Amino acid sequence: MARPGAADRASGMLTDLYQLTMAFAYWKAGITSTEACFHLYFRENPFRGGFSVACGLAQAIEYIENLGFTDDDTSYLATLTGRGGTPLLSAGFLEWLRAFRFTGDVLAVPEGTVVFPNEPVLRVTGPVAECQMVETALLNIVNFQTLVATKAARVRLAAQGDPVIEFGLRRAQGPNGALSASRAAYVGGCAATSDVLAGQTYGIPVGGTHAHSLVMVYDSELEAFLAYAEAMPNNAVLLVDTYDTLEGVANAIRAGQHLRELGSDLIGVRIDSGDLAWLSVHAREMLDSAGFPDVKVYASNELDEYTIESLKEQGAAIDVWGVGTKMVTAYDQPALGGVYKLSAVREPGGEWEPRVKVSEQTAKITTPGLLRVRRYSDAGGRFTGDMIYDELAEPAEQCVMVDPADATRRSSYCGMAGAEELLVPVFANGERVYDVPPIAESRERAIAQVGRLDPSHVRFLNPHVYKVGVELGLHERKTALILAARGIAEG
Amino acid sequence: MARPGAADRASGMLTDLYQLTMAFAYWKAGITSTEACFHLYFRENPFRGGFSVACGLAQAIEYIENLGFTDDDTSYLATLTGRGGTPLLSAGFLEWLRAFRFTGDVLAVPEGTVVFPNEPVLRVTGPVAECQMVETALLNIVNFQTLVATKAARVRLAAQGDPVIEFGLRRAQGPNGALSASRAAYVGGCAATSDVLAGQTYGIPVGGTHAHSLVMVYDSELEAFLAYAEAMPNNAVLLVDTYDTLEGVANAIRAGQHLRELGSDLIGVRIDSGDLAWLSVHAREMLDSAGFPDVKVYASNELDEYTIESLKEQGAAIDVWGVGTKMVTAYDQPALGGVYKLSAVREPGGEWEPRVKVSEQTAKITTPGLLRVRRYSDAGGRFTGDMIYDELAEPAEQCVMVDPADATRRSSYCGMAGAEELLVPVFANGERVYDVPPIAESRERAIAQVGRLDPSHVRFLNPHVYKVGVELGLHERKTALILAARGIAEG
Repeated sequence: MARPGAADRASGMLTDLYQLTMAFAYWKAGITSTEACFHLYFRENPFRGGFSVACGLAQAIEYIENLGFTDDDTSYLATLTGRGGTPLLSAGFLEWLRAFRFTGDVLAVPEGTVVFPNEPVLRVTGPVAECQMVETALLNIVNFQTLVATKAARVRLAAQGDPVIEFGLRRAQGPNGALSASRAAYVGGCAATSDVLAGQTYGIPVGGTHAHSLVMVYDSELEAFLAYAEAMPNNAVLLVDTYDTLEGVANAIRAGQHLRELGSDLIGVRIDSGDLAWLSVHAREMLDSAGFPDVKVYASNELDEYTIESLKEQGAAIDVWGVGTKMVTAYDQPALGGVYKLSAVREPGGEWEPRVKVSEQTAKITTPGLLRVRRYSDAGGRFTGDMIYDELAEPAEQCVMVDPADATRRSSYCGMAGAEELLVPVFANGERVYDVPPIAESRERAIAQVGRLDPSHVRFLNPHVYKVGVELGLHERKTALILAARGIAEG
Repeated sequence: MARPGAADRASGMLTDLYQLTMAFAYWKAGITSTEACFHLYFRENPFRGGFSVACGLAQAIEYIENLGFTDDDTSYLATLTGRGGTPLLSAGFLEWLRAFRFTGDVLAVPEGTVVFPNEPVLRVTGPVAECQMVETALLNIVNFQTLVATKAARVRLAAQGDPVIEFGLRRAQGPNGALSASRAAYVGGCAATSDVLAGQTYGIPVGGTHAHSLVMVYDSELEAFLAYAEAMPNNAVLLVDTYDTLEGVANAIRAGQHLRELGSDLIGVRIDSGDLAWLSVHAREMLDSAGFPDVKVYASNELDEYTIESLKEQGAAIDVWGVGTKMVTAYDQPALGGVYKLSAVREPGGEWEPRVKVSEQTAKITTPGLLRVRRYSDAGGRFTGDMIYDELAEPAEQCVMVDPADATRRSSYCGMAGAEELLVPVFANGERVYDVPPIAESRERAIAQVGRLDPSHVRFLNPHVYKVGVELGLHERKTALILAARGIAEG
């Protein structure tokens, strides 16, 4: 089994086979110098929510910096065959792959930035085969981390500032699924993770309590609590529901009294089953009456933003929330449908030509050009809207932007202030030109960015849709390209 | 970014912090020789289905074989602190960790075996700290791979024997989430994966077509098809829906005619959007009329077992199914709630003592003992029922088994034939005693095992519940232990 995160070496092999067969086709046709522009974006916020939190750029950068193929890789690729046992890829192409590295440009939205449907989170330009080779891994990394960071931001909102500890390793999608999730959950606003490897790999705070099995190893719960508290006088959070939760609280109080005799103090009790609202209130009362007002009540058991919101409404006396499965798998929507689409092509020595994919489904139609995103905010720093434009063309005079989902919904961005470019340079000619901030900084950014949204955008039920528009000139060029592709003359 | 699967080195750090703090408590209390028995099992089949397919044992074995802590690991652990900045774990314990390895016994159900709720998939006995240290990683590995293998088996059933190619890397939960998913999907019955790294790592067949971007790089679709087909005359599956699907089919036919001139043949066309039933039927007609009856129609676009079943019912002319997101994330239930529970304890030189966890929720109550599972089948090889028993105790004379979810539902296993032990020895005293079969064998086993279930157990809607029972004597001992733990005298 891989030791995820330990080696931190990327691989060209982390890709779909078709990226290799397409690169082979370009190589064989001699068009490896043709350049292309691709944008990575998603079409809907996850969880029927009103925002998303961009995450995964640090790993995307590591992937691109280390991208390449080893002799072992090309030896394996040489074994792949098509019909009749003929080699799929030629020896000349495999030699070309052996020397492969990424030489293009990347722009990206910094981690922890709130982002919205249809606006590019990442933009890649360069030789077409290189841009395509990185597609699958970039999608894998950014899709999943953005999804989990968004979930964590929502859970943090529900917890109203209480610490949230991510407990998901045992139910995560593979060892690295867990590692990526722990990282993204921290960026999104969690306080700590139970995953020791994530703590070691990313410098995330680690935390935890103990399991029911500890209690069951001893002849009595009290004996187990005393042994654990004595071993960890400065870190004891006792799990009280192995046999009977409130009797467990009484035993935890006894262990707390013993810890005081040792000159230390119990940190908390954890409840992992039953009616968390009712049990936490009674546990709190028992702790307070026994003179332990500072002992925290931890709760866990299939929690997510909805159960936490409901427990808060019921007056649950819970101080620290342990959230596992539903955070690390983004349970109610376990994949972000991010896509990576070609939007322009440039022949060697030529000009960029915009391209559009029409598709049978309107939602799958792409936007042409070399796109940028400009975000506006009001005097109080609150975000007011985002405008997508094409850096290859002058904006239309009217300074109007068009809703990408409904061309009749338009608004003016002339009066909007505080313009900020969302996409920043990350790679130029294959060289990194961006310093990845410390992870704690990305977490602070995420918390601050969510705080700059109007409360109507962050509520869970039917959130107000944040304004994202396509600059009018770009919208008109896009419409013309679609009509042309469909063989319909413009009116 | 990690190169998952490349190094294949396990790590003791892939664990929850509480496994380390509990081990520390045992070490400090001097009870590292106390032995325990833990079972890994789940409480419900995923996807409201009638069966599950066990998967992940090969990675679980690799993990246990390579388990350990490096100097870097213990150096990191030495930096962890409790309240007041005191070290969380002592230097003596970290030294003990540095020498840590697994010395216990493991029994497990071979990969590709159908399994059911409440029966152990894996059983671990040994020194309690060792058994707990492996809990988190074993759950992570077995939960996720069993989940995806089960999903793949369901998709394969829906496809009625048509090949299913797994396309999920870009939407999977992290690079290793993808790798684990590709492996499990293959074991569950997929024919191939698009993930090149999974192909290389596990020896799984790889397959794929091309993307819309290939078409968009060229000035026309036909030009793109010809370039791709010429590069890969023996592997050309052409994606036909970049602009207009049926015009795309017409262009694919032209490319197919060109391939014939070159002495080769087109393999297929792929449709990735729109009404797959209607479009596939029309594509089929066009291909047949043009003299291409052997060209396959591939379809993709958010497919799962339900959409495939529906497309089959509508008479879709689809030969090969590309299934991505919904398979690799197990979209409609992205986590299997597998647990790992202590069931017995043995002091040095003593006898095994059964233990039970009571919990506020009946479903969370555990079964005591050192459990085994016996599976019965009829003369035709069809599975008829599974009986869970405790190898420490003689079965009750009546040979009755009790439904773990409803103690009043009982049946006799006296008349049942073809008894087979599900759990086989995998580790004895820390040494591996099991040869992991080639992955293709596990896949064959999964297909054969699903075929041995009555059709009523494999249907998607309200499947008939397969009979799993707890041997009567074990049931009675469990009941007595629960009553004792709740302080209620037996009647």
